Amino acid sequence: MISNDIVDKIKDVMRGANVLESKEERLCYSYDATRQEFLPDLVVRPASTYEISEILKIATANSIPVYIRGAATGLTGGCVPIKGGIVISLTRMNRIIEIDEKNLIAVVEPGVITYDLHREVEKKGLFYPPDPASFQICTIGGNIAENAGGLRGLKYGVTRDYCLGLEAVLATGEIINTGSRTLKCVTGFDLTSLLIGSEGTLAVITRVFLKLLPLPEKKITVSAYFRNIDDAANTVSEIISSKIIPVTLEFMDNDTIRCIEQYLKNIYPEGTDTILLIELDGKAEVIEREIEQVRKTCEKCGAFFCAVARDDKERAILWKARSSISPALYQIAPKKINEDICVPRSVIPEILRRIKKIGEKYKLPIPCFGHAGDGNLHVNIMLDPAVYNIKEAEKAVNEIFENTLELHGTITGEHGIGNTKIKYLEMEVGHDSIRIMKEIKKTFDPAGILNQGKMFE
Amino acid sequence: MISNDIVDKIKDVMRGANVLESKEERLCYSYDATRQEFLPDLVVRPASTYEISEILKIATANSIPVYIRGAATGLTGGCVPIKGGIVISLTRMNRIIEIDEKNLIAVVEPGVITYDLHREVEKKGLFYPPDPASFQICTIGGNIAENAGGLRGLKYGVTRDYCLGLEAVLATGEIINTGSRTLKCVTGFDLTSLLIGSEGTLAVITRVFLKLLPLPEKKITVSAYFRNIDDAANTVSEIISSKIIPVTLEFMDNDTIRCIEQYLKNIYPEGTDTILLIELDGKAEVIEREIEQVRKTCEKCGAFFCAVARDDKERAILWKARSSISPALYQIAPKKINEDICVPRSVIPEILRRIKKIGEKYKLPIPCFGHAGDGNLHVNIMLDPAVYNIKEAEKAVNEIFENTLELHGTITGEHGIGNTKIKYLEMEVGHDSIRIMKEIKKTFDPAGILNQGKMFE
Repeated sequence: MISNDIVDKIKDVMRGANVLESKEERLCYSYDATRQEFLPDLVVRPASTYEISEILKIATANSIPVYIRGAATGLTGGCVPIKGGIVISLTRMNRIIEIDEKNLIAVVEPGVITYDLHREVEKKGLFYPPDPASFQICTIGGNIAENAGGLRGLKYGVTRDYCLGLEAVLATGEIINTGSRTLKCVTGFDLTSLLIGSEGTLAVITRVFLKLLPLPEKKITVSAYFRNIDDAANTVSEIISSKIIPVTLEFMDNDTIRCIEQYLKNIYPEGTDTILLIELDGKAEVIEREIEQVRKTCEKCGAFFCAVARDDKERAILWKARSSISPALYQIAPKKINEDICVPRSVIPEILRRIKKIGEKYKLPIPCFGHAGDGNLHVNIMLDPAVYNIKEAEKAVNEIFENTLELHGTITGEHGIGNTKIKYLEMEVGHDSIRIMKEIKKTFDPAGILNQGKMFE
Repeated sequence: MISNDIVDKIKDVMRGANVLESKEERLCYSYDATRQEFLPDLVVRPASTYEISEILKIATANSIPVYIRGAATGLTGGCVPIKGGIVISLTRMNRIIEIDEKNLIAVVEPGVITYDLHREVEKKGLFYPPDPASFQICTIGGNIAENAGGLRGLKYGVTRDYCLGLEAVLATGEIINTGSRTLKCVTGFDLTSLLIGSEGTLAVITRVFLKLLPLPEKKITVSAYFRNIDDAANTVSEIISSKIIPVTLEFMDNDTIRCIEQYLKNIYPEGTDTILLIELDGKAEVIEREIEQVRKTCEKCGAFFCAVARDDKERAILWKARSSISPALYQIAPKKINEDICVPRSVIPEILRRIKKIGEKYKLPIPCFGHAGDGNLHVNIMLDPAVYNIKEAEKAVNEIFENTLELHGTITGEHGIGNTKIKYLEMEVGHDSIRIMKEIKKTFDPAGILNQGKMFE
């Protein structure tokens, strides 16, 4: 509980508006995409860096937990207020301040929706590549906090690759500027990269300087159908070895395809076991040549059917199944543990074999799909609490992570740690790195108010 | 001075070899490309992570300064042992451990020469883009420590963009692993990026995981000659606005050209005031089309002559002048202060105008050249101590930096802070960021042994 005195101070900062106290209002800020729910004591919706700085000073002085919230689409509990306290929602800070066409730079507030930025820059023939699955509703601030990836990561990288600089407020209220409005900058330690992916535990990001690219001329998509996973995995290696880097190289395994089939009916040719969805972009003459090469590689490696889409309408048909995975999965079980391991792409067949074995051992369906090009796999341990034992599912997760690390992978490619993966972090990064991370956290946030209970024990 | 007892302990770790004590030997490890000289008390040349860990434990226990040294090509004093102590040279750790063609990853030790890596990966049709000017002699470890850029930065970014993970030894001897062998990784804070560009102040890098790309099919180079700087600067903006991103977009100003002319004689057409050197790479059919577009843009914007090079021999002719800048500059004055500011590329003409005015005010020649594409300019304040006052030159540097920051630039795009720019760091990053950086330093290196006297006061 926050005392009336402190609530009044916060209301003063906010000039009486955008401070939400009723239970109904607070409930709207209690959950995220993990379906966890924790009720905050107070919700504040600031519109300026100054307001955020003043609120943080009050919170630090009184050791009140603070949780920063964008669109709450995170998959590891990054924004849920597990210790109550104050939720600061940044959705009112949603201005695209500038699109600098001469320098290919955008300056935005953290509450800007990723899709809105996509559309605005594309109107000017420019391109902001990061596209997490939730891009139509998630915010740039959340993308920065989680270092969001997306479907275009193979060719274009992740959010960190596009963030040149930040304005951020420390837990103690000081405003810092990191990085620069320039493409290169080596003044001191790279605090920009340190804040990116720090999941709201170090500072509140209030302004973002993003690098843009010229919009590619054209896109072509191929969907290739295989009778077994090994042929599909070989195809991925062959495409990359032939020096072609697609924008997107997605795969769906047999379990995933069966779920989609149940959901959409008769969408795939008979005998489909694994699907690759491959998208190229670039200059028209190059990708026409390359897509032909990709199609031939697919067929040589065992694809029994390839569909090519050259315009948006055709592409929408090929993408429909990929976009339906989430609702389709919920058809086979009401709950899922959604992990996003990442492995060197050459060991994808091996990790998938091991995951299937783990699934058999614990009698759990584990459909897998994801970004085969960069080795980032979405592993879905499907749970029906009426049938399956959640403890068994957790053992399965543990074994999947152990196998991932053994194959030189990472336990999370783009979802982050939040509160759901805390107990696994040390498996990967080790005790000494965690000690250093905790000390860095203390430097930025001495009272430990920011995102309490996340990232570390 | 280091006591005999401690020297003996270090010799034990090194099994009696590769510990250099004589003055003649130590002198070889006393300088860098800034021409500063400080004699270390001891030089150690370890060949393993274990040896480095043991030496650092001894140094921390006895508060002995430690300076890590690669090829000593740094331009801000990053490796010079200004407080004496131990120099650890990493040149024996020069193995390319693995080039993983399936996953496009290289695993190397820090002493590998950048050019050796270029050549080895190119043999396999792969590409490691970072190419600082010293690439033929500098080391990957030094590139990581400084976050080195280079001529291909405009299209391909800098060292940080290619480093997936590190093995590093803390000042207290613990060995940590950061990042992953995967293209995506969000487990905890990004310690990889924090170590990159930390200039040897946080930890000793002992192994590096690098991302590779497919080698581009073809390169074409254009050299364009202008009668004034504004036309050249407009050309840069026009090329980028036309959605072409060259690999390299270098410029040389009038003062630089005069120096080269004195040095090489009759190399440029009469009336040349500014030169752009533009290189495109990619698929043959695309760059043939684009180079034509670039040539037309140059001519439209005022270039009075364009030379195109399609093979290595022709290219070498165009590049000869660019490669001669350094020796050519020393013809007009025996000493130079070499700054590497970076500005948003649209303000290049403005910053150059201001630099010329500052040069006139202090009666100092200031030839400028560099990476126009990413706004990273090499500003050379030429000094003849017999004629010019060094204090005046420092005032000029200060004014150049003030103007750079006013135009939203940074005081260093790729050279770093070292000991030569310490007093300017706060101008750019501010007091609060420096406080945080210093606390991070203390976390990694509690006894403050690593690169004492660098980065901060």
